[in-house]
Amino acid sequence: MSLKNKNLVSTQDWKKEELDQVLDLAIKLKKKPFNKNLANKTLFMVFFNPSLRTRSSFETAMNQSGGHAVNLAIGQGMWKLEHQEGTVMNGECAEHIKDAAKVLSRYGNAIGVRCFPELKNWKKEKNDSIIKGFAKHASTPVINMESTLYHPCQALADIMTVKEHLGKTKKKKFVLAWCYHPKALPTAVPNSAALIASRYGMDTTIACPKEFELDPSIIKSVKENCKLNGSKMEIVNDMDKALKGADIVYAKSWGSINYYGNWDEEKILRNKLKDWKITKQKMQLTNNAKFMHCLPVRRNVVVDDAVIDSKNSLVYDEAENRLHVQKALLNSIMR
Amino acid sequence: MSLKNKNLVSTQDWKKEELDQVLDLAIKLKKKPFNKNLANKTLFMVFFNPSLRTRSSFETAMNQSGGHAVNLAIGQGMWKLEHQEGTVMNGECAEHIKDAAKVLSRYGNAIGVRCFPELKNWKKEKNDSIIKGFAKHASTPVINMESTLYHPCQALADIMTVKEHLGKTKKKKFVLAWCYHPKALPTAVPNSAALIASRYGMDTTIACPKEFELDPSIIKSVKENCKLNGSKMEIVNDMDKALKGADIVYAKSWGSINYYGNWDEEKILRNKLKDWKITKQKMQLTNNAKFMHCLPVRRNVVVDDAVIDSKNSLVYDEAENRLHVQKALLNSIMR
Amino acid sequence: MSLKNKNLVSTQDWKKEELDQVLDLAIKLKKKPFNKNLANKTLFMVFFNPSLRTRSSFETAMNQSGGHAVNLAIGQGMWKLEHQEGTVMNGECAEHIKDAAKVLSRYGNAIGVRCFPELKNWKKEKNDSIIKGFAKHASTPVINMESTLYHPCQALADIMTVKEHLGKTKKKKFVLAWCYHPKALPTAVPNSAALIASRYGMDTTIACPKEFELDPSIIKSVKENCKLNGSKMEIVNDMDKALKGADIVYAKSWGSINYYGNWDEEKILRNKLKDWKITKQKMQLTNNAKFMHCLPVRRNVVVDDAVIDSKNSLVYDEAENRLHVQKALLNSIMR
Repeated sequence: MSLKNKNLVSTQDWKKEELDQVLDLAIKLKKKPFNKNLANKTLFMVFFNPSLRTRSSFETAMNQSGGHAVNLAIGQGMWKLEHQEGTVMNGECAEHIKDAAKVLSRYGNAIGVRCFPELKNWKKEKNDSIIKGFAKHASTPVINMESTLYHPCQALADIMTVKEHLGKTKKKKFVLAWCYHPKALPTAVPNSAALIASRYGMDTTIACPKEFELDPSIIKSVKENCKLNGSKMEIVNDMDKALKGADIVYAKSWGSINYYGNWDEEKILRNKLKDWKITKQKMQLTNNAKFMHCLPVRRNVVVDDAVIDSKNSLVYDEAENRLHVQKALLNSIMR
Repeated sequence: MSLKNKNLVSTQDWKKEELDQVLDLAIKLKKKPFNKNLANKTLFMVFFNPSLRTRSSFETAMNQSGGHAVNLAIGQGMWKLEHQEGTVMNGECAEHIKDAAKVLSRYGNAIGVRCFPELKNWKKEKNDSIIKGFAKHASTPVINMESTLYHPCQALADIMTVKEHLGKTKKKKFVLAWCYHPKALPTAVPNSAALIASRYGMDTTIACPKEFELDPSIIKSVKENCKLNGSKMEIVNDMDKALKGADIVYAKSWGSINYYGNWDEEKILRNKLKDWKITKQKMQLTNNAKFMHCLPVRRNVVVDDAVIDSKNSLVYDEAENRLHVQKALLNSIMR
Repeated sequence: MSLKNKNLVSTQDWKKEELDQVLDLAIKLKKKPFNKNLANKTLFMVFFNPSLRTRSSFETAMNQSGGHAVNLAIGQGMWKLEHQEGTVMNGECAEHIKDAAKVLSRYGNAIGVRCFPELKNWKKEKNDSIIKGFAKHASTPVINMESTLYHPCQALADIMTVKEHLGKTKKKKFVLAWCYHPKALPTAVPNSAALIASRYGMDTTIACPKEFELDPSIIKSVKENCKLNGSKMEIVNDMDKALKGADIVYAKSWGSINYYGNWDEEKILRNKLKDWKITKQKMQLTNNAKFMHCLPVRRNVVVDDAVIDSKNSLVYDEAENRLHVQKALLNSIMR
């Protein structure tokens, strides 16, 4: 089916068959990486935040398809963008997202947007108004390169990697394991990981301390995904218990939604949880699980070198698959 | 006629027929956007200041012509450049414009430069020594991507847009309308807009508060342009009066030359002028005028949403035409 | 011989015949600059520090060979990278070089790295652990775009320029002349210049104040190079004496290794040495020498306009040759 002009804000917005179609194409492109399908086409990448993999893999994906990516970094050679509609713009923003989206739509053929949360006000930020604003106003397809709530390209690379290494996803045990990290990180990656694993019929376990449960709206969707696909969903506040029988250990740290914006207070709590780390001992509790992480990762804080550098680690395949799924996505929605 | 190797610092430096030739090519390229005319050619874009449209449209123009644009941002991955000749360089500048221009000329085929004024000393800054320094020392053509005095690529896009929508320019009424804005902005855009409108025989009205009149040297050129083309030029300190019969309302804010560098003092004056804003009521005074603005624009400060989002607004066509005129320019001067 | 997949950390790591092969190809590419040898190939340029020539010439070299360069600037749209192995990453670095190198190796075909010293601790920084870390962990070739110790691409451009202008290098007198500069600069360029001149059989004189002698390990290598090639090496603490009979005056400032990290103290010393500057009078002491400098240069501080703008100045040829040697290098190691 044609995916032309579709936005990708969250994998949840797409039908399973549409996601499958992108993943199938990604596998083909992994074997035959170069084409001229996107000749004369331009992808604008609007980065409100830093990037290594996303920037490098999107830019390379465009080039390997004969097209071109333009890297626009907000606040570095670009002013701030207003995203509230109807507002009187007498503050620090010099341009409205509406105008930026409409103008870029005149120049190019797709817009990627990376817009992390400000980590101040969850209720407000969970509206994800920047990515939604671009999706609303652009006349080209818009790709979420990680917003407050979602990181769908990471999720596609993750599930592609799981399929490659486990053969199938149904009834395999996927453990999303919260880990200690010195900073309170956003929840887009764990949200998207749990959503895609459950969408593909994996038994989805979220291992995290009680205060670090993900937003209820995400959990609701994960549960629905599991129900639709005949798999199980559980939240376990004990890492050792959670890891038992795991086929995939997907490590990730994130900040507590309950303490959102009160990070000093959250830190006191977080600092007591330094043993939430993936070690060789933890991995021995699993079903010879594969280790996954989206990167960047703080080695020997989130995960020990002995695990991430082991044979069971999929982190580089996972990172590489970003290139392939994004190229498949661009080849699907841009023409 | 051949435009090969011509610099574009101001539209005033070019003959009318030369400007026409670029505009004619732009119309053709708008219909047939892709070619390989600039294969193996490189444009260096030297940005001393931020950009969205300029960066995106130049980079896309090069790519759609088979060439490549390199984005060099001063102060972000690049040191400051000295522009005074013969100076003892023991200050903060690590490299002289002379050397940068000569070296880039060895690597590529054209140099674009964006160099906003520092907004400190008008007498000194109006010499426009950075863009002139590049034009002097480069052996490739140099393109002004907005300097203290001029923004010629914007002017070309503006007049292309006027021609598209009004059919002709002669004797049509062009009102450059000063608007309130919380900051004192540079005058390159209003200078270039008034210069190109008058050059193309439009009756050119500058609507602005008394203290915000443009530099006398610019006004002199606008008057000469009008005289040569049989059109009228007037400066009106009352916006309502100025808008009567307008075919084009070109909104733009700028700082007062008279208070240049004394921006705190200027702000007191400026803050009394918040009613200098383009509203639906103001537009009703005109001859069903089209609304123009170079963007970025502060919505509901400079212009109401009801105007910029109306059918009479040309702002996105104007932005789009940046791509076409610049591509025409690059295709003309780089080969 | 095949140079495929070779790292270039220092010219000292390469056989003379390998360097010759790159220089020979550079001469050919200077005459015939465009090819499609690197079609579908990607070079990642990781810049921890600013750049004009390096960035522009590498990006252009890739494009003129049909490939693409991605510009990644650390700290501007990218987080800091840890380079110590086995460390507990609870500090300010969000990612380990190991992971960055391995991931970029999955996306592209070569990695260039610019990593200046921090100018704090010579003993530690002279290990050059960032460039070595990339070279160790990447599975693609790694190119040093200037590290603490070396700037091999500059050295290749330098010797190419000498050969072009002097015809031969054997027994010609190359004077590396320390000059005054308001800041303490790194030693990568003087190290690499002395290493390449001596490698190519030039009589190599280092003119510098006593306290500014280069690191003993470098001097040792320069001496060995001279011995192997039948040429002379001397360190002279008197500029006038050193310049006598010079065929090449290679001006460069650098900070004193002896005062490394104690720059306030070094500055007192340095400020007494403002007459270490290349003037017309100094050039008259030479054998009608050619003047060289890697750029950027502080005019009238390091060298007078009258010298750098004279017929004997090779600075723009030297800068241009960066493009040709780097293109030759990329065409050799990336396929």
